[in-house]
Amino acid sequence: MSEPKKICIVGSGNWGSAIAKIIGSNVTKFDQFDNEVRMFVYEEMVDGKKLTEIINTTHVNVKYLPGKKLPENMIAVPDVLEAAKDADVLVFVIPHQFIKNICKPLVGQLKPTAVGISLIKGFDIAEGGGIALISKIICDFVNVPMSVLMGANLAGEVADEKFCETTIGCRDATIGRMYRDLIQTDYFRVVVVDDVEAVEVCGALKNIVATGAGFIDGLGFGDNTKAAVIRLGLMEMIKFCEVFYPGSKLGTFFESCGVADLITTCYGGRNRRVAEAFVKTGKTIEELEKEMLNGQKLQGPQTAEEVNYMLKNKAMEDRFPLFTSIHRICKGEIPAAEMVDCIRNHPEHMCTFDKEHTSVTGNHD
Amino acid sequence: MSEPKKICIVGSGNWGSAIAKIIGSNVTKFDQFDNEVRMFVYEEMVDGKKLTEIINTTHVNVKYLPGKKLPENMIAVPDVLEAAKDADVLVFVIPHQFIKNICKPLVGQLKPTAVGISLIKGFDIAEGGGIALISKIICDFVNVPMSVLMGANLAGEVADEKFCETTIGCRDATIGRMYRDLIQTDYFRVVVVDDVEAVEVCGALKNIVATGAGFIDGLGFGDNTKAAVIRLGLMEMIKFCEVFYPGSKLGTFFESCGVADLITTCYGGRNRRVAEAFVKTGKTIEELEKEMLNGQKLQGPQTAEEVNYMLKNKAMEDRFPLFTSIHRICKGEIPAAEMVDCIRNHPEHMCTFDKEHTSVTGNHD
Repeated sequence: MSEPKKICIVGSGNWGSAIAKIIGSNVTKFDQFDNEVRMFVYEEMVDGKKLTEIINTTHVNVKYLPGKKLPENMIAVPDVLEAAKDADVLVFVIPHQFIKNICKPLVGQLKPTAVGISLIKGFDIAEGGGIALISKIICDFVNVPMSVLMGANLAGEVADEKFCETTIGCRDATIGRMYRDLIQTDYFRVVVVDDVEAVEVCGALKNIVATGAGFIDGLGFGDNTKAAVIRLGLMEMIKFCEVFYPGSKLGTFFESCGVADLITTCYGGRNRRVAEAFVKTGKTIEELEKEMLNGQKLQGPQTAEEVNYMLKNKAMEDRFPLFTSIHRICKGEIPAAEMVDCIRNHPEHMCTFDKEHTSVTGNHD
Repeated sequence: MSEPKKICIVGSGNWGSAIAKIIGSNVTKFDQFDNEVRMFVYEEMVDGKKLTEIINTTHVNVKYLPGKKLPENMIAVPDVLEAAKDADVLVFVIPHQFIKNICKPLVGQLKPTAVGISLIKGFDIAEGGGIALISKIICDFVNVPMSVLMGANLAGEVADEKFCETTIGCRDATIGRMYRDLIQTDYFRVVVVDDVEAVEVCGALKNIVATGAGFIDGLGFGDNTKAAVIRLGLMEMIKFCEVFYPGSKLGTFFESCGVADLITTCYGGRNRRVAEAFVKTGKTIEELEKEMLNGQKLQGPQTAEEVNYMLKNKAMEDRFPLFTSIHRICKGEIPAAEMVDCIRNHPEHMCTFDKEHTSVTGNHD
């Protein structure tokens, strides 16, 4: 019997706290886990007190998940190296713009046997433009094998223990089962697949599609049109994985990380909402970010730009007419009303008999 | 050059009239079609005039698609045999409970080379219980090779020429291309696949899932839970085709008939709406059909019952826990709140590594 695994949660925002609530409870149920969980909390003052001290005494993250009790075995630690250095399992759940600064102090300092899982949605910008997967960036810094977790998981609903599903992408069966034990509850259901890159890519690309769905709402089109845009978005997500992450499996897009998260994001979610306002008000995305999001960047338009950089470089814009038109609309290059014209002759609108054969592996397990 | 094909539309309701508007216009664009299209219209009196005469003089189906002009080459015919006997292509678009009565006069009377396409959603009840595909019933009566058309196609939006997609299931490439020419417009985009049975099955099973989505709405669960129910519903649709229609392709579920129609039905649609009211009011489905639908039968609960008959007979209820629980809720056997408990340990909630291999062919084209 090996030593119980120590868990460290790197991050303590809304989503980080919701998942900490689950992990803190689950570690006590399995011998394989150490009962104490450390959570790196970026220190800030709340009503004159340190957030870490508030969490360690009241067991509530009053700033990011007020009203929900965290398990008492969850210890907030303001220094990331202190929190992470003895960990066997690192759970990364921080806004993606902070990832490099937070990983730097960990370089060369982690246990050589440690493994990591990223709950971070979105891409980072690669050197020279284009996209880089967050899990890859983390791995490049801290050199631990990385898995990912993505799904239709609004943090507030998870914290309320409302039933939902999630997808873990993990290449190793033993580690995958360990993550399932760590994270699954009877209201938070985990499916583990080995198609790691596709799982992560879904979590970023869905925001582009949701931006398009918001344009459709803003233009006053009906349910049919919105369903068509969501479907074509899903097909471009699949095509994107096929082209840039060959070996991706079609079945992955049927998991929570794929179709379920896409649906949730296209009906709820801030990307849809801001995109609808973009059409209705005529304001720019930047103006709306200021007004509606306190200046926070909207992921959909940003991801659309990063993706477009890659597509343009490879002369592939024509194969992704929805992604391309959404990017151009965000940039003000074409009016939103033209989006529909851009997808009338979508490459997907061909008979089976006429389509090129695609190489996405189709096993649905 | 063969003779131009004569088209007959069997049906003239809301959806029949919307599709007649497209077909009437398209036949004039291709030499392969005869310019006159016959439409079987069940004769009824509207303000003291025959509906066929109104349509043939005003070119508006004032009863079922008021305010929209039908093409003048669309001739309403009150006798189904008269309408269909010279046709090369029959488009069936009538409520499914009328199919047998309407097909009977056609037995042995059609051109031996005629082909047909069914736009009718839902199953019929097979002899001895269980389900029968509508296209199969039509074929058994009139002995023409049948294709099907299904998709996220609310008739009113199609008639308004709002952009949408549809899926045609057709086994023959030449006939498939003919149907595409007949039905595709720049706002109504057609994809032809050869997986006919799966296309048709999607159009019926989605109503069961939408009933479940309505329960979730009625119970006040959030977006995550609804997305999980929609996804698990999709997985049971796939599993159903795998078990009962082996050879079905996974890619078919990514077409408009699959994921897109499912989404539309789970967010809009009468099944969702009545199921939500079922939970909120505590009334029976029958009472709500009377109150909300003028006594019309709701398809979801009916299809759930037909499907359950098959599953029970084959001792397969456990493999379809969502379909099974929705049926039991509709029948008042369990409270709606128990649906979530029924899917907590869904067969889909397993690691890739643990799952049995499935036989659905995975080519996405």
